[in-house]
Amino acid sequence: MLPWETYLDHQKDRFISELLDFLRIPSISSLPDHQSDVERAAEWLKVRMKAAGMESVRIMPTGGHPVVYGEWLHASGRPTVLIYGHFDTQPVDPLDLWNTPPFEPIIKDGRMCARGASDDKGNLFIPIIVAEAMLKTDGSLPVNVKFLFEGQEEIGSPQLADFILANKDLLACDLVLSADGGQWEEDQPALILGTRGLASVFIEVEGPDHDLHSGTYGGTIANPIHALVQILDSMHDPEGQVAVDGFYDDVRSLTDEERAEIARVPYDEAQYLNEIGACCVYGEPGFTTHERAWARPTLEVNGIYGGYQGEGLKTVLPSKAHAKVSCRLVADQDPSKIADLLVAHVNKVSPPWVRVTSTRAESGAIPYLIPAEHRAMHIAASVLGELYGKEPYKIRAGGTIPVNALFLKYLGAYTVVFAFGLKDERQHSPNEFFRLSSYERGQKAYGVLLKRLGEEFK
Amino acid sequence: MLPWETYLDHQKDRFISELLDFLRIPSISSLPDHQSDVERAAEWLKVRMKAAGMESVRIMPTGGHPVVYGEWLHASGRPTVLIYGHFDTQPVDPLDLWNTPPFEPIIKDGRMCARGASDDKGNLFIPIIVAEAMLKTDGSLPVNVKFLFEGQEEIGSPQLADFILANKDLLACDLVLSADGGQWEEDQPALILGTRGLASVFIEVEGPDHDLHSGTYGGTIANPIHALVQILDSMHDPEGQVAVDGFYDDVRSLTDEERAEIARVPYDEAQYLNEIGACCVYGEPGFTTHERAWARPTLEVNGIYGGYQGEGLKTVLPSKAHAKVSCRLVADQDPSKIADLLVAHVNKVSPPWVRVTSTRAESGAIPYLIPAEHRAMHIAASVLGELYGKEPYKIRAGGTIPVNALFLKYLGAYTVVFAFGLKDERQHSPNEFFRLSSYERGQKAYGVLLKRLGEEFK
Repeated sequence: MLPWETYLDHQKDRFISELLDFLRIPSISSLPDHQSDVERAAEWLKVRMKAAGMESVRIMPTGGHPVVYGEWLHASGRPTVLIYGHFDTQPVDPLDLWNTPPFEPIIKDGRMCARGASDDKGNLFIPIIVAEAMLKTDGSLPVNVKFLFEGQEEIGSPQLADFILANKDLLACDLVLSADGGQWEEDQPALILGTRGLASVFIEVEGPDHDLHSGTYGGTIANPIHALVQILDSMHDPEGQVAVDGFYDDVRSLTDEERAEIARVPYDEAQYLNEIGACCVYGEPGFTTHERAWARPTLEVNGIYGGYQGEGLKTVLPSKAHAKVSCRLVADQDPSKIADLLVAHVNKVSPPWVRVTSTRAESGAIPYLIPAEHRAMHIAASVLGELYGKEPYKIRAGGTIPVNALFLKYLGAYTVVFAFGLKDERQHSPNEFFRLSSYERGQKAYGVLLKRLGEEFK
Repeated sequence: MLPWETYLDHQKDRFISELLDFLRIPSISSLPDHQSDVERAAEWLKVRMKAAGMESVRIMPTGGHPVVYGEWLHASGRPTVLIYGHFDTQPVDPLDLWNTPPFEPIIKDGRMCARGASDDKGNLFIPIIVAEAMLKTDGSLPVNVKFLFEGQEEIGSPQLADFILANKDLLACDLVLSADGGQWEEDQPALILGTRGLASVFIEVEGPDHDLHSGTYGGTIANPIHALVQILDSMHDPEGQVAVDGFYDDVRSLTDEERAEIARVPYDEAQYLNEIGACCVYGEPGFTTHERAWARPTLEVNGIYGGYQGEGLKTVLPSKAHAKVSCRLVADQDPSKIADLLVAHVNKVSPPWVRVTSTRAESGAIPYLIPAEHRAMHIAASVLGELYGKEPYKIRAGGTIPVNALFLKYLGAYTVVFAFGLKDERQHSPNEFFRLSSYERGQKAYGVLLKRLGEEFK
């Protein structure tokens, strides 16, 4: 019988070609125009999972973008592992900064270049391939496996909590593996202890009911842009700390031990800045860059617009101005409470000469922390350690994987993030890519991990 | 011989139809894509002025959008009047707020609806028609007339100063009449003593060289939007006074007499607010609404943009953020000095963790004031007084007509603004219109004014 690793080697070209097909589907979850593309990606996955040998494969409605589910539950007496990923992508604007069209994937210099390549289609596809390889060779999997792939991660998974709650029995498991995340560097593995949560509000400021001539009305009627910049500027103090009342109340302070652990992870500031073309780091005083990114909450204006944006000058006093604000949260902040604090802050500082509306976005995500001593973390660490020849760093991720916290809350199962993106791969930016080398190594890693969990995880 | 007034009556339908043709040309001066349309509008005017009987009609280059010139100089011993207007228009966005396409003019309820109808094609066309009527009936004009129509008023007339200076002899005159402006109300005339000037800067804030994932980098790298709102918010104090050092240094204070004269102009705050759909007035403390609009300088953010503007949420930490800022100036502020002060302010308050560039816009306009006792003002007041049956108010205009100040500086001639727009006509906004009644009354008024200037102005 062919070993599963050999099967993976033999089918390598096909697996690359299939991933490129998957990347051609512009499954942008935030844009209503792309709803049918998100559905098309779900359909593609369903067909592909069936072909891999998964059972009970189905597309399940959520009220928003759908979920794709499949299972293989014949490993009697073995643990049940739920494997999570997402098949939706971020939008692509600004489109003119892409070197090649975002949904016409190409391979160049060992990189698959496309929106969603690294986040998360490439990572999501790995465990499907591994399951196929084992089912086509061994005829079985070493653990019971449930696949749960969602189509709304990039908009904060608004319906996923209800979906998990409504399908607790179907999704019941001993452990979750998340295929949404990454490693530290090409030659350095890492395991993620925590992910940040998310809360956001949209702010709209209205002045006159149409754009006015700034000559006729300038100086007599409040400019909504002025009110908006006043509101937004009040959200940070000049040093960069969030100045919203109560914002830090529920933040779990870092222990000396945790700070020491974070400090052991190498940090090269010149390289960090060079990768993103920034002049300098900046943030909340009293914390290191890794502490700020991993264990401290933030408030960022993700977008602002109002008035004239074309070339040259248009002397209007605009009718409206808008901002999109989101916060990354850490344990034990509650997204709903933080959104309330943001709305209360906006209400408090809004001047009376404009109409200000702040709308809580539907999206929200609970921050997540897994105990460093969890059994599955030890197993995953040993698998990565052998494959890379280095002990993985125990880090946290600044980003948000809403489901990690939801699985814990509703299924009682902790999540080990086991994925192979790298942080230079321009997730959420123009020219996203995923390394072929990560794609291959990820396949081997997942195979070994499932074997080891079957043997060692109770 | 037919009186010129009767000629105007007989040709009324043709003159309306011709103006609609003129309005069909999308001569937006701020957008490079419309450069050929601005040229087409110049060509249209040239042909039309020749048909009216003007002589030496020509399109003259300026280095930017062209000027159209024409003259009739056979009124020996009579004064020479230069009549000014502009054939370029504002942009049209937001396009979705227009009830009918901006460059497909229609007549509805006695209104000609199109971009440029009121500002300034309708007003500009009036003296051309009047000249035609007099030349086709009397065979002569009561004064020597020079027409000077420009194509860059809406972008602040960047090349016009040099053009006037280079053509001082050609343009030499005793008085300027500006066909760019308006009356107080449908049944209440007004004459304008002053117009505000303009200075502007564009601000660009750069952080990282590409948009970043706000999860990965939020909290560690400065967000250019945060820096921009900090910079912009520093430009006003909370009460609405401009907080740029030196901004008010050269402002000519209002005398008690001037304030009393402004106070005589009726002001109905409920109506003022109702017309623009605003909740309340707002501005520099210690001044009335008319004083704020007419005799005090302002600083307005005309546009702001950065990061994600689409539907829903995109959790980016953006690479760049932008703002367009312009100031309306009053005597004796200097646009160049004010632009320098703005740049210096931006430099002073910009945080070091982003790269901030502030660029002085090419446009700039000197504020203008004509002495209330000027002879031509008395003549114009009597013409309007007879036509409307009411004495005109002596007001100022909050808007900018850069050439008034330039004519005074380079030709030594004061300008009487003689035009028939009304302030509810949505100049610079969606659904601009011009009243047919103003169009007709303006023709009579111009005819009588030229006659009277020929008789009474030295």
